[in-house]
Amino acid sequence: MKPILVGMAAAVLLGAQPRSVRSQTPGSDARPATTNVPGQQYPKIDSRLRATFRLVAPGATKVQVSVGGGKYDMTEDTAGVWMVTTPPLVPGFHYYTMIIDGATVADPNSKTFFGSSWEHSGIEVPAPDEDFYATKDVPHGEVRARWYYSNVRHEWRKCFVYTPPGYDDHPAVRYPVLYLQHGFGENQYGWPTQGKMNFILDNLIAAGKAKPMILVADNGDIETFGPGGRPSRPAPSASGGRGDAGQRGDARARGGFDFNSFLSGFESVMINDEIPMIDSIYRTIPDRDHRAMAGLSMGGGQTFITTFDNLDKFAYIGGFSPAVPQDRFAKILEDPAGFNARVRVLFLGTGTVEREHNPNILQLHERLDSAGIRNVYYESPGTAHEWLTWRRDLREFAPLLFKQ
Amino acid sequence: MKPILVGMAAAVLLGAQPRSVRSQTPGSDARPATTNVPGQQYPKIDSRLRATFRLVAPGATKVQVSVGGGKYDMTEDTAGVWMVTTPPLVPGFHYYTMIIDGATVADPNSKTFFGSSWEHSGIEVPAPDEDFYATKDVPHGEVRARWYYSNVRHEWRKCFVYTPPGYDDHPAVRYPVLYLQHGFGENQYGWPTQGKMNFILDNLIAAGKAKPMILVADNGDIETFGPGGRPSRPAPSASGGRGDAGQRGDARARGGFDFNSFLSGFESVMINDEIPMIDSIYRTIPDRDHRAMAGLSMGGGQTFITTFDNLDKFAYIGGFSPAVPQDRFAKILEDPAGFNARVRVLFLGTGTVEREHNPNILQLHERLDSAGIRNVYYESPGTAHEWLTWRRDLREFAPLLFKQ
Repeated sequence: MKPILVGMAAAVLLGAQPRSVRSQTPGSDARPATTNVPGQQYPKIDSRLRATFRLVAPGATKVQVSVGGGKYDMTEDTAGVWMVTTPPLVPGFHYYTMIIDGATVADPNSKTFFGSSWEHSGIEVPAPDEDFYATKDVPHGEVRARWYYSNVRHEWRKCFVYTPPGYDDHPAVRYPVLYLQHGFGENQYGWPTQGKMNFILDNLIAAGKAKPMILVADNGDIETFGPGGRPSRPAPSASGGRGDAGQRGDARARGGFDFNSFLSGFESVMINDEIPMIDSIYRTIPDRDHRAMAGLSMGGGQTFITTFDNLDKFAYIGGFSPAVPQDRFAKILEDPAGFNARVRVLFLGTGTVEREHNPNILQLHERLDSAGIRNVYYESPGTAHEWLTWRRDLREFAPLLFKQ
Repeated sequence: MKPILVGMAAAVLLGAQPRSVRSQTPGSDARPATTNVPGQQYPKIDSRLRATFRLVAPGATKVQVSVGGGKYDMTEDTAGVWMVTTPPLVPGFHYYTMIIDGATVADPNSKTFFGSSWEHSGIEVPAPDEDFYATKDVPHGEVRARWYYSNVRHEWRKCFVYTPPGYDDHPAVRYPVLYLQHGFGENQYGWPTQGKMNFILDNLIAAGKAKPMILVADNGDIETFGPGGRPSRPAPSASGGRGDAGQRGDARARGGFDFNSFLSGFESVMINDEIPMIDSIYRTIPDRDHRAMAGLSMGGGQTFITTFDNLDKFAYIGGFSPAVPQDRFAKILEDPAGFNARVRVLFLGTGTVEREHNPNILQLHERLDSAGIRNVYYESPGTAHEWLTWRRDLREFAPLLFKQ
């Protein structure tokens, strides 16, 4: 419980510290971000990774952009056009927001991405290793929207299923499955959109680095109550959260919230509804040796809870900047040999910038090592609690899977 | 009711005329719109279809919501919270925007929908016949994101492919295909999201009213120039457009724009890249008797151009509130018998509210009738140039297909 809160506090520190920075002068080589809606020139990013934002707000008195941990005052140019150029941004995907006279909204020039429980703008800053998630000239799998009925929740649910290239061409072949979970305030769109899970797997499979596998991304924003009444829950946090939580229409009571219970809310849906549905509809190999689960942040906590409680169903486990449910780790630490005998890969990932502020994943790795629990630890260079960390985690994790 | 509808249609057609309306008092039975992001209470819609909007903007001096053809001043409640309740809205899906001190942005309480070339907020107002596009307890098909390379455009493209229930269970069965195109300023997400194409077909197929078929929704926003340089194009229009086009970063020259050339830009991609790709990857019946195309507004114009130019490839044609390329109709009017002999269904749809202001589709129908060209004409009761009209068009059109 405590490390979760510490992790989130760190993320907040990284995500929302206001700071005063004079607008930079953008390089002449600035180009529109790939996350812009088609035809939009702004935001632009130059070769030093400085981003220039633009917003039309002729009657506004104060306009700011909040991006990559900084909050930047925009200045009014001609005719109600507000602009600012930031210092160099960290490579990778960042949620960002515009703040117009106190209203936190998405930039209309940007595509939108569901994070912190609303439709954020997002900016893709080129990364030196971006080739691994690029749309390349390799065979491409599909990302299928699949609707299924949950008996646990009494509701229709939508998940995304990646089927690898050739899935329809080889109707006798069966595939292993990796279940991928998003973070708090995100949903099932996170891995296919921000996470680029399909391109990462397309590229790994084409290079012979990962086995063809099915990926499943479901909505893990499940509370332990019925679907009718939505109980209190913690306020949105983590990187990219809006500075204020003020757009929330309901003042959610925060007292008495049980985060561990919240984390485990998804377990029942996954075990009772989602996995049986996937195994009945898709050509899976429906045993523990061909089933993996990984998740980021909150989804990492859900992964540990779901897999540790159901080791008869999973042999591969990944925590990407994960929340750490201490009770579940206490339990596996009682029998390291038993855990090692059953779990083929336990993977832990974090970003070096994230780790500097919050070393809890490194500490968990060291604790597991000391106890003799086999695990793989990966640090993403120069990244924080953000999607480039998690894309790289997937790139590192997928090749370790299903090698028996 | 009628005068309201007429007023709204006028506003829609003229591009969101401002009008002064005192805020209504919402009914106590108001419920959150289904288009809200999860957990958001606002906007709410009461049983009389009045919508209450809420925005937090503590430093703003003027906040408006533009929805359904009206622009409504919001009033500051307590602590920077702005609210307004509209008069009854027309049933169906409406794009809408917030205007904060002159900045036109999406409502952060809403999911986003790509329209007028940016990520709008949208509100789903309950319709008396909403059952036909509801997520019901029937077998559900999939909506698959498919990437393919266009040799015409020299770019990777993403389209959505609906495969009907049972597609993977019956690998020997082949299916007919309906290609569905969106309107101007929209993209391939329109039909699966705003259009609910998959639920409409799931329900029709379950009721035995339509044959199982594949649907394909691609991005028709193709210009006749290369992918590198984006030429001038007409300004966003139609319902839901922002009042100003000011967020456009580039001042696009509007002179010399050739709309007919713009409409035909997609034809080459579809004929040379998309159809061969679909026929090679999916289990289609790859002949004209099992291939249909329909589109709304701009996509209707693209449909007429593409199908009339390629009658060896299409036997079913649908125009939903379509743009009307006069040159192509002039050509088919030269040989009504020849056209009738080849085209099994030519479908024309419009909304009654749309028709009152712009009877061009009714007139086209009458002109075709007079010339002896067989066609089906449908009017959606009480709707304008919006998605409920087009959802109903699909409901009416799909049962007419592939009956030979």
